[in-house]
Amino acid sequence: SESLHTDQSTCFAATLCGSCRDAKMLSCGWLLALLGPGIHEYMMSIMDPHHYNEIIRCLCVLQYLPSTAVNTTLQLQELREQMLELNISAYIIPGTDAHLSEYIAPRDARMAFMTGFTGSAGTAVVTHTKAVLWTDSRYWAQAERQMDCNWELEKDVSISSVVEWLISTVPLGGQIGFDPFLFSLKTQEDYELNLGSSNHSLKSIPTNLVDRVWKKRPSILSDKPDRLPDRVIRNTWQDKVTLIRSQLRDNPYQPTALLLSALDETAWLFNLRGSDIPYNPFFYSYTLLTMDTIWLFLHMERVTEELKVYLNASCNGSLCVQLKSYDSVLAEVKKYVAQPKVKVWIGTEYTNYALYEIITPQDKLMTSSYSPVLTTKAVKDETEQRVLRNAHVRDAVAVIQLLMWLEKAVPAGKETELTAAEYVNKCRSKQKDSKGPSFETISASGPNAALAHYNPTAETSRRLTVDEMYLVDSGGQYLDGTTDITRTVHWGTPTAMQREAFTRVLMGNIEISRTIFPSGTRGVNIEMLGRRALWEVGLNYGHGTGHGVGNYFSVHEWPVGFQSNNIPFKEGMFTSIEPGYYKENDFGIRIEDVVVIIPAQTKHGHNFLTFDTVSLVPYDKKLIDTSLLSSEQLQWLNKYYETIREVVGPELDKQKLYEEKDWMLRNTEPFTSPGSSASTSISSLTLIALAVALVHDII
Amino acid sequence: SESLHTDQSTCFAATLCGSCRDAKMLSCGWLLALLGPGIHEYMMSIMDPHHYNEIIRCLCVLQYLPSTAVNTTLQLQELREQMLELNISAYIIPGTDAHLSEYIAPRDARMAFMTGFTGSAGTAVVTHTKAVLWTDSRYWAQAERQMDCNWELEKDVSISSVVEWLISTVPLGGQIGFDPFLFSLKTQEDYELNLGSSNHSLKSIPTNLVDRVWKKRPSILSDKPDRLPDRVIRNTWQDKVTLIRSQLRDNPYQPTALLLSALDETAWLFNLRGSDIPYNPFFYSYTLLTMDTIWLFLHMERVTEELKVYLNASCNGSLCVQLKSYDSVLAEVKKYVAQPKVKVWIGTEYTNYALYEIITPQDKLMTSSYSPVLTTKAVKDETEQRVLRNAHVRDAVAVIQLLMWLEKAVPAGKETELTAAEYVNKCRSKQKDSKGPSFETISASGPNAALAHYNPTAETSRRLTVDEMYLVDSGGQYLDGTTDITRTVHWGTPTAMQREAFTRVLMGNIEISRTIFPSGTRGVNIEMLGRRALWEVGLNYGHGTGHGVGNYFSVHEWPVGFQSNNIPFKEGMFTSIEPGYYKENDFGIRIEDVVVIIPAQTKHGHNFLTFDTVSLVPYDKKLIDTSLLSSEQLQWLNKYYETIREVVGPELDKQKLYEEKDWMLRNTEPFTSPGSSASTSISSLTLIALAVALVHDII
Repeated sequence: SESLHTDQSTCFAATLCGSCRDAKMLSCGWLLALLGPGIHEYMMSIMDPHHYNEIIRCLCVLQYLPSTAVNTTLQLQELREQMLELNISAYIIPGTDAHLSEYIAPRDARMAFMTGFTGSAGTAVVTHTKAVLWTDSRYWAQAERQMDCNWELEKDVSISSVVEWLISTVPLGGQIGFDPFLFSLKTQEDYELNLGSSNHSLKSIPTNLVDRVWKKRPSILSDKPDRLPDRVIRNTWQDKVTLIRSQLRDNPYQPTALLLSALDETAWLFNLRGSDIPYNPFFYSYTLLTMDTIWLFLHMERVTEELKVYLNASCNGSLCVQLKSYDSVLAEVKKYVAQPKVKVWIGTEYTNYALYEIITPQDKLMTSSYSPVLTTKAVKDETEQRVLRNAHVRDAVAVIQLLMWLEKAVPAGKETELTAAEYVNKCRSKQKDSKGPSFETISASGPNAALAHYNPTAETSRRLTVDEMYLVDSGGQYLDGTTDITRTVHWGTPTAMQREAFTRVLMGNIEISRTIFPSGTRGVNIEMLGRRALWEVGLNYGHGTGHGVGNYFSVHEWPVGFQSNNIPFKEGMFTSIEPGYYKENDFGIRIEDVVVIIPAQTKHGHNFLTFDTVSLVPYDKKLIDTSLLSSEQLQWLNKYYETIREVVGPELDKQKLYEEKDWMLRNTEPFTSPGSSASTSISSLTLIALAVALVHDII
Repeated sequence: SESLHTDQSTCFAATLCGSCRDAKMLSCGWLLALLGPGIHEYMMSIMDPHHYNEIIRCLCVLQYLPSTAVNTTLQLQELREQMLELNISAYIIPGTDAHLSEYIAPRDARMAFMTGFTGSAGTAVVTHTKAVLWTDSRYWAQAERQMDCNWELEKDVSISSVVEWLISTVPLGGQIGFDPFLFSLKTQEDYELNLGSSNHSLKSIPTNLVDRVWKKRPSILSDKPDRLPDRVIRNTWQDKVTLIRSQLRDNPYQPTALLLSALDETAWLFNLRGSDIPYNPFFYSYTLLTMDTIWLFLHMERVTEELKVYLNASCNGSLCVQLKSYDSVLAEVKKYVAQPKVKVWIGTEYTNYALYEIITPQDKLMTSSYSPVLTTKAVKDETEQRVLRNAHVRDAVAVIQLLMWLEKAVPAGKETELTAAEYVNKCRSKQKDSKGPSFETISASGPNAALAHYNPTAETSRRLTVDEMYLVDSGGQYLDGTTDITRTVHWGTPTAMQREAFTRVLMGNIEISRTIFPSGTRGVNIEMLGRRALWEVGLNYGHGTGHGVGNYFSVHEWPVGFQSNNIPFKEGMFTSIEPGYYKENDFGIRIEDVVVIIPAQTKHGHNFLTFDTVSLVPYDKKLIDTSLLSSEQLQWLNKYYETIREVVGPELDKQKLYEEKDWMLRNTEPFTSPGSSASTSISSLTLIALAVALVHDII
């Protein structure tokens, strides 16, 4: 069926575009589908990436564009004028902010302003004649819906792909401009490395060119940072400062200061949370920590008297926080670095290039991939572990409420992806300490679920029916923790292929969850266990297998997880496990749980670890083919269900959700092994029957 | 038992050294063991790395040193004089040659000359007051036996550990000298990166300081390079040159030349083999390949008239090889680079820093980790696959001969590790196209096998007995291929722990071998399958899980394998799979097979791969506990044994080795599942008996 799709797209291009390319196969009956409303998504999904831009160009010529496309002609024209002034051949527009955040505030959505594309990952490049967006497979459909004819889409998201395009497009000797606040040191290095000896140079331009043409750019919010309640923390900010200072002292390279740029670094250090970024309780900030001073850079107009007292801001001692203006960070760090015998420690993944540039000469700089705050934060202390587990119990209640309600409501035919998303958000909002969703709920039915990070809109929302699979990936922010869980269900009769795929995705989840590994093993070295059952039958999925989660922090809390740049697993880390399978134009499956890393008891060894699942919602039993499961997998599943009963049961009682409790009990009934007991007893009965017959004959 | 060992070593140190450290536990009866002959190995093996150097210092004070230690006082003194002249505070002496070879010729054994240590991996550093060797766990015991009191041993082999030591030892501003011919570009970068802002600088010194004091350094051999017979090759050197040139042409960075430094790169390109390095059929050489010239740098006195004709050396055309003196490579590359519009492609892992240094300015250089020759060579063509499989069939005959002979000979009590090694070497030498062993045979009994890369010597060789496990890791060079196989056997009654560990190592080997994965998967992402069955019970092993092998090439043919810097797996690559388990002072297990990557047929997908095992020798059935195996593992094992019968059987017949054939047939009898058929039928029989009894009663 893969090759059919390619033929269709070729045919489509040939037919529609006439002069654009040679028409090789004109007589395709399926062209009638053109008239249908879903044509754009359909086209997108069948398209061979190779033909994509060609087809889009044809659609542009024919003025066939979706109503959702944003007209970007004006901003592109103005940006190009800026580029001309600075003698720049190309300008790179990343989708991040000065803190290299994954989720950004509206005022940092420069890529979206320029391209129309609002997805959370991507890089745009503008030259004087071209404008191109790179984004990953999760967002191809969305980008296609949102971008107008000024833009082309590139589907390989690696820096090397961007650079290859730049090398082939930008004239020799041409300068490629970038905003150093929006590049990490690591990103800049990767661009430099890939540009190599191509005779193109990168030019750091500290004033953002998009901001110059973005007249209606949103301003800073007035919301004030809040301190966390004592009941969810174990270590005060003073404890944390002391701990991090000891790591500076013990480092053989003898750094004298630590510069924190990522928003969760400062928020963690001071036990503060803000609301500058949707779904992420962060506030714009930097910290420079030395052995005897603490400089906190933030928007001063937001600092309350109460916060000043909390931070001990009226003194200059080693445990007094000196508050400085957010915008003064470059100047202040420059001043610090100008002193003799200082050395600033920065993490290369989350420090922007603008800050790096001013730390000169080289011997005043010390780098590691991640700051000691990020590696320390990755391991949750006892209190953090306890409260994060608790948040997951209440979160399970909300998801159980959703699943039970859908089971009853869907057959009536009134519910949609949007109403389901609203329902689960509402259920979460009623839980104790709720602070809203931790990301935009992914509520996807049928073919929409095949787009791994689809969010429903009024335009795309499908009605939920008993004939389609449904995937819901959602999470909550609570004062005591952040959650993230995905369940996939079917309210009617799944196909054999759907059951097989679901079961194999589940096997992947279980195989990782139950595995025992030495402390210090990297996630990337065990993540294949999440794929292996799929690989066996030639299936796979195109996204990562999991990411850290925080205590009322970002739902993707790096550097914990299964990616190659993640740090080794240690006891007390939390990560999601989320294998999936996506069948284009048909259905999507993902099963995601959050787990905590705990010690494993083994027969011969010490210092081995395993995972303990803290997401506590049953899987759809209709979709599980137990004959595919090994006895170890079945045993794991039954034990997990026992835990759900033991832990979520009392919470449901407490919340007086008796119907939900019944639903939970029905859906956590133990599975029996189809192999061992059942089939053995059948064949034994046959043998007994034979024996009886035999005895009768003899007698 | 781990903590007991630490106590013992502390006690040993305390007792022997008196003033060296506080004596905490003086009354250890085991001290009697001091009088035994194996004390040195024993001590080594029980030592906590933390105490190691302390203990060695004590032994030095007491003048208790093994007779195998080499006196290095003179060469150290002379080297330090050289360092003083050049104002060098430290000098790094790697264990490699100018081609970054893993195995080196005696004339390149500078590390061994300086330290006394002859292992194949390590780095020595000499300062004016200290001398330290870094080597990995495979070689700790050997280093300890061979080094005198001038040397200390460091057990963490990473560059960061060497650099940390340098930073703490070399005075600020001190220069650290190195020979740029013995550092890869990658190694130099790693040192530079780790030194970071520590105020120590690396100094490239093109004349090797060890060579200046090494009066009896062996000279170049007079052996001539030989061409491979046509029957083992598919592509002539002209085909290969054309193929590699097409990769230069297609590269977006537009390199004009390719510089080949690794010895197997030039040998592969010209289908030539030499004998400069023990066990490795290489000859000293470099190649500079452009679109219209081929420069081959080698020792001209070795070039025969026949070779000149073969290489078309009397012309200047694009398929004529221009021969140049080996020692002129720096000057000639410099001359080439001085031309306008040239760009030289080098692989950073196997090009020495001396060559890199002269390729300036930066825009005349293009780098990738591995040259296109190494990545092309990694995928064997049809002929290479066929002949390499054939070599493994003949090699299996030799190993079967060894195993059968040992089974008979060991009980008589006359055989030793050394006689066993000699026997298998002799068996291989009788096989067609044999060119000797591919590395020094590892023949290790009992505790010796716990040292993963132990080679027997007259001093250490143990007598083989029915009471100890025996591990033999050996391989052959044949004109058509290189082999490498490890089997572990027991001729008496293994303990439960030995059976469990062996079975779990075998499970690891099988789990990797049978796994199905998408083309392009990296070895590092699936190698945990080799460890998982061990991890389950808290066991593990401390070495890698496999490496590429060549067609009459190096037995470790990188960049194929399971390490993090290895390239993704593709159809046609060969790699070893070699999990193990080592119990200190007791036994060692390793099961190693060579496999080829072949397409896998899957239910739903395309482009999936799996492994096909080409090493064809049965495992010791006495050591296999089939109750631990899954039915898939058992099935794999039986299918493998069937293949051995089908493929090695006829070869044994052909060689008239009928007794060996019987032995092979006995040792490849299919296993029956202990779970399914056996136990089911027993319980069924019980049920039948019950039923019969019941019927009797009724009647």
